[in-house]
Amino acid sequence: MGIVVQKFGGTSVATVENIRRATGWTIEEKKRGNDVVVTVSAMGKTTDELVQLASEIGGKANEREMDLLLSTGEQITVALFTMALKEQGFDAIGLTGWQAGIVTEPVHGRARIEAIQSDRITEELAKDKIVVVAGFQGISNDGEITTLGRGGSDTTAVALAATLKATRCDIFTDVTGVFTADPRYIRQARQLSAISYDEMLELAHLGANVLHPRAVEFAKNDRIPLVVRSSMENKTGTYIEEVVSVEKNLIVRGVAFEKDITRIQVYGLPNEIHCLSSIFSLLAESHINVDIIIQSTTEANPSSVSFSIQTEDLESTVQLLERNKEDIQYEHLEWESGLAKVSIVGSGMISNPGVAAKMFSTLSQEGIFIKMVSTSEIKISVVVDEKHMVKASELLHQAFELERVSQPTY
Amino acid sequence: MGIVVQKFGGTSVATVENIRRATGWTIEEKKRGNDVVVTVSAMGKTTDELVQLASEIGGKANEREMDLLLSTGEQITVALFTMALKEQGFDAIGLTGWQAGIVTEPVHGRARIEAIQSDRITEELAKDKIVVVAGFQGISNDGEITTLGRGGSDTTAVALAATLKATRCDIFTDVTGVFTADPRYIRQARQLSAISYDEMLELAHLGANVLHPRAVEFAKNDRIPLVVRSSMENKTGTYIEEVVSVEKNLIVRGVAFEKDITRIQVYGLPNEIHCLSSIFSLLAESHINVDIIIQSTTEANPSSVSFSIQTEDLESTVQLLERNKEDIQYEHLEWESGLAKVSIVGSGMISNPGVAAKMFSTLSQEGIFIKMVSTSEIKISVVVDEKHMVKASELLHQAFELERVSQPTY
Repeated sequence: MGIVVQKFGGTSVATVENIRRATGWTIEEKKRGNDVVVTVSAMGKTTDELVQLASEIGGKANEREMDLLLSTGEQITVALFTMALKEQGFDAIGLTGWQAGIVTEPVHGRARIEAIQSDRITEELAKDKIVVVAGFQGISNDGEITTLGRGGSDTTAVALAATLKATRCDIFTDVTGVFTADPRYIRQARQLSAISYDEMLELAHLGANVLHPRAVEFAKNDRIPLVVRSSMENKTGTYIEEVVSVEKNLIVRGVAFEKDITRIQVYGLPNEIHCLSSIFSLLAESHINVDIIIQSTTEANPSSVSFSIQTEDLESTVQLLERNKEDIQYEHLEWESGLAKVSIVGSGMISNPGVAAKMFSTLSQEGIFIKMVSTSEIKISVVVDEKHMVKASELLHQAFELERVSQPTY
Repeated sequence: MGIVVQKFGGTSVATVENIRRATGWTIEEKKRGNDVVVTVSAMGKTTDELVQLASEIGGKANEREMDLLLSTGEQITVALFTMALKEQGFDAIGLTGWQAGIVTEPVHGRARIEAIQSDRITEELAKDKIVVVAGFQGISNDGEITTLGRGGSDTTAVALAATLKATRCDIFTDVTGVFTADPRYIRQARQLSAISYDEMLELAHLGANVLHPRAVEFAKNDRIPLVVRSSMENKTGTYIEEVVSVEKNLIVRGVAFEKDITRIQVYGLPNEIHCLSSIFSLLAESHINVDIIIQSTTEANPSSVSFSIQTEDLESTVQLLERNKEDIQYEHLEWESGLAKVSIVGSGMISNPGVAAKMFSTLSQEGIFIKMVSTSEIKISVVVDEKHMVKASELLHQAFELERVSQPTY
């Protein structure tokens, strides 16, 4: 037998009752003869409550102290989870990020894991203990407590799995697996029994919200099989692995969508080589996430560029561009909010020409106007009016026959 | 100028509002030109809430994980206190117990501080920062998070003061200082402007609840002047130091009292040398605190012994003694609950004979029967019926003229 890493998210450990239920999965895995390492998030709303306290005291901007504050959330869950295991007669030990040897960059609020010095974990596993590790946190080389930012506990789990050469990493969450589309919106959505790392990566980036992209990247690099499954129901879940054989015949594996998109158009740019880089460097320095970029380059001078952002960044983006109007030397700005992005993802696209054409015609036949397009090898995204988002997703789900996806067997 | 250590207890940091008020004292000290190191407790009810979670999961017996759990309480306060200082423009840094180099025994729930490796604190002070340290917690040499048990934050503060050779250690609490008696019960109680370490030690042990005895011991060993004062009101507080000159003429400096005392009598003991030690070793192994012990040794065989305990330990004490009846070889047990202990404390007793006689006659004149007596060089305790506790304390307060104590000047 080998080592299995399990990760329980905030909902799965939201209450004492949920923690006790979650330990059931750990004990089941241990009884199968595997060594088990568990990573836990903070309980339900704990992080929000701590952020609220920091807000009240006006201290949210102090990143170092925010990490000191927020890291207590996972430490509490670790202690309670470990107690629950022991109370059921299973020897266990709980470790904070620094005790588990999770070394990160010396950055606060969004540190990346640099290494896991896993001696302590390995020692404890050798004593036949279940090891419970605080997710989302680590220690920098100068002894500071750091946190990994959003989705951090997923990343902790996968990094542990990679370091410990785990046979599998189970991500327990509040959904039963990865779906062909968000089932809260698309009635025909089906759960996938398996999906490839690359497809999952595109879906994670596209806002499927099941797994953090950094965690998927980690898993892909070290070929760690991931399983996304529910901590509430005994269902198989979705496997994420390198080669997904079962559903190779399916060209598209999922439809993702995301609202609150704004398109910005910068007109009358000088035809100079550094012009684009100066716009996007500016935005990057202000941590504004730019998604799709389209430049209509013509020989004619001046040219223009369009790009999409989250609507919440609109105000700061416009201010930033207007403040730097003279440097960038554009003529004027236009923007359009109330847009949405709809994407189809599938490894099968690489070897199947005509997928984009089918996507466009499906939408245009129903009178849905496409405002922007972006493609990768396994993904095509279009920006449409927000009011068409769900309808467009349903049409694409149907056109690419996603309801035919083979269901996991329970 | 020197280093001043400040300690803020749970009430002083119970809310964001209280934390902000507490930082006012820190800033005032910093503005005076001193380096300031602050130790904080967990916010108000936080510890109780964490203990409640542990109870619900049935894990309170896991001492290691209890420490992991409870130590988050002070860490949260440290982060918020530091943020509040920074928001007011004062550079500060918050440190957990392990970051501050507080090394303890490898014991959970009641560890003693073995050393403070203060390099980090000294470094930060040299950068002109206010250093905020988590009270009540430390790290053992094998890298485990430990807690110091009740009153631990007081001990942290005094240990820091001793290590850093602080000029003073201010204990901010919810009372304005040390009183001649508990003012909630004794109307005539007066605040002392000063008291010696030894007197405070007796009062602390006698349940005055202002300062933890271990903290007073630490302060006495290293001659650290302590000041007990309120975090809510701008009042002078009570100085605790080696020689208290001001009130030397006062023989008795305070009256302390404590209810829920039970007297146990063990009758018919064989007149053997190991007999007493076997009883009290048994009780010590079970962590039952025995206070007063009285043995009436006569040549006659068999003899008997009486001792007092907290009433909450009655059941376990009786069970323990009855289980070991054959080993100890006593004839029978009797016990009496509903008792209280009343004590008078004062360094002046050493050189003033007749203090005990005055105490006994004061009580007997009012018909208060004394059931047990215990004395030290600077303390006399009597056990009486609980219904007489407050009356006895008032009589003694009056007899020893404690209302004449010189008040601190504001």
